[in-house]
Amino acid sequence: MLVNTRSVRIEWGDCDPASIIYYPRYLAFFDASTSALIERALGMKKRDYLKAYDFTGHPLVRTHCRFLAPTRFGDDVKIETTVTDIRRSTFDVRHLLTRDETLAVEGFETRAWVAGDPARGDMRAVPLPRHLVERLSRG
Amino acid sequence: MLVNTRSVRIEWGDCDPASIIYYPRYLAFFDASTSALIERALGMKKRDYLKAYDFTGHPLVRTHCRFLAPTRFGDDVKIETTVTDIRRSTFDVRHLLTRDETLAVEGFETRAWVAGDPARGDMRAVPLPRHLVERLSRG
Amino acid sequence: MLVNTRSVRIEWGDCDPASIIYYPRYLAFFDASTSALIERALGMKKRDYLKAYDFTGHPLVRTHCRFLAPTRFGDDVKIETTVTDIRRSTFDVRHLLTRDETLAVEGFETRAWVAGDPARGDMRAVPLPRHLVERLSRG
Amino acid sequence: MLVNTRSVRIEWGDCDPASIIYYPRYLAFFDASTSALIERALGMKKRDYLKAYDFTGHPLVRTHCRFLAPTRFGDDVKIETTVTDIRRSTFDVRHLLTRDETLAVEGFETRAWVAGDPARGDMRAVPLPRHLVERLSRG
Repeated sequence: MLVNTRSVRIEWGDCDPASIIYYPRYLAFFDASTSALIERALGMKKRDYLKAYDFTGHPLVRTHCRFLAPTRFGDDVKIETTVTDIRRSTFDVRHLLTRDETLAVEGFETRAWVAGDPARGDMRAVPLPRHLVERLSRG
Repeated sequence: MLVNTRSVRIEWGDCDPASIIYYPRYLAFFDASTSALIERALGMKKRDYLKAYDFTGHPLVRTHCRFLAPTRFGDDVKIETTVTDIRRSTFDVRHLLTRDETLAVEGFETRAWVAGDPARGDMRAVPLPRHLVERLSRG
Repeated sequence: MLVNTRSVRIEWGDCDPASIIYYPRYLAFFDASTSALIERALGMKKRDYLKAYDFTGHPLVRTHCRFLAPTRFGDDVKIETTVTDIRRSTFDVRHLLTRDETLAVEGFETRAWVAGDPARGDMRAVPLPRHLVERLSRG
Repeated sequence: MLVNTRSVRIEWGDCDPASIIYYPRYLAFFDASTSALIERALGMKKRDYLKAYDFTGHPLVRTHCRFLAPTRFGDDVKIETTVTDIRRSTFDVRHLLTRDETLAVEGFETRAWVAGDPARGDMRAVPLPRHLVERLSRG
């Protein structure tokens, strides 16, 4: 499977009064990581692939995260992202966030490939492009 | 079980270019909702209960969310929060977020009651105060 | 002038490792406060007034904030928002954020009333609706 | 004067329903940029300089931003940060944010060098370390 790896610096503003990361920030990191993986697979930026393909986006259907070790400001973490399963119009993503080779967070997402306008409530799942499936699968 | 209900207005700044909520914001809402439940159970604000009890905080161990319907800016949503299981030093929280009586998001959290300094990596789980367990259980 | 007042609870997640608010959060509060003032003036939600009037939005041209006293999680603050000057297609907004009657932050904004698509870079200032000017001015 | 330059990718989650950046995110970028400049001047991370020097932090006293051109998700912007004036216990910072060599945002900050606990309201301005003043001035 295709893997995308990126580095993120945990900033002061990402942390809460316990001096560790405010965990919703991880979800923001993971969202950007999923987009980066798809950008890599399709060879274009998200703003371009949203136009190039006949769909609206890949919203989250469910997510599951396990927090194994805290991170704090100044930490440089690594996020390894890969698709673990692809179905007709939904797919699973796994994020492994490590600090100094230690797994700190595991994030799992199920996303749908949708058409329609989510703000009007008429989203519907559509098949993932075969092209994308191949790229994500081959690695 | 004790239930805490609060209303939240989804703001423009909570939403992304798809004009629906940027989902990490839900996790921020849920974090505040868990604190509000404990504040209600203990009858004091978080900044006070962090001092009144001999512990450091109640960090997240894992979370799981299901996104059933999108919300968008201008929506007033209701979040109903309750503890669904309490063990010696960990507990489970469930958040039901509804818009116009329709369930939009279900959030589940497992949290630990910890002592020590999370920023130094020496957190350890400690028993929840009996007092809190009773209040959360009675409703 | 029309004044809109709203209350905001400073949450744990709004604060940084110094245990005081992470100041970019104030800007998010002020943005929502400006929208609330215009919603009040026009008698409809932002998502409705963006459709009802022939324009795209009221983006920020400049902002200026003075931070006089810190706020921290658990604080309930009051934000008083009013328009202090209206020109043909731009207007000035002032936010006074107080905690226990003490002024903690003063925020000033200049915003433009624009048409066109900001994401394509073809925004242009258009005149504010006379209707809105009257409502904001009368109070 | 010492200058710190860093690159930031504007992410989907940094943007609002107008598909351009939600401007409070700029303030978060600028806060991290000021810390990065001081880290560079002192040769250590913020979490280390907060311990190595006898002070609590460098909170914002005032800020002023001008928004000249919008940015949107997928944009890679450059932030050039420098200190423009240093007084006994306060200093001024300027951030120039450019996209493709075009100035998009100018941010100005006045910060204080403080001791005491901001959460208890007993912050007081203390002199900037001579060492830091020299490093920031020399470039």
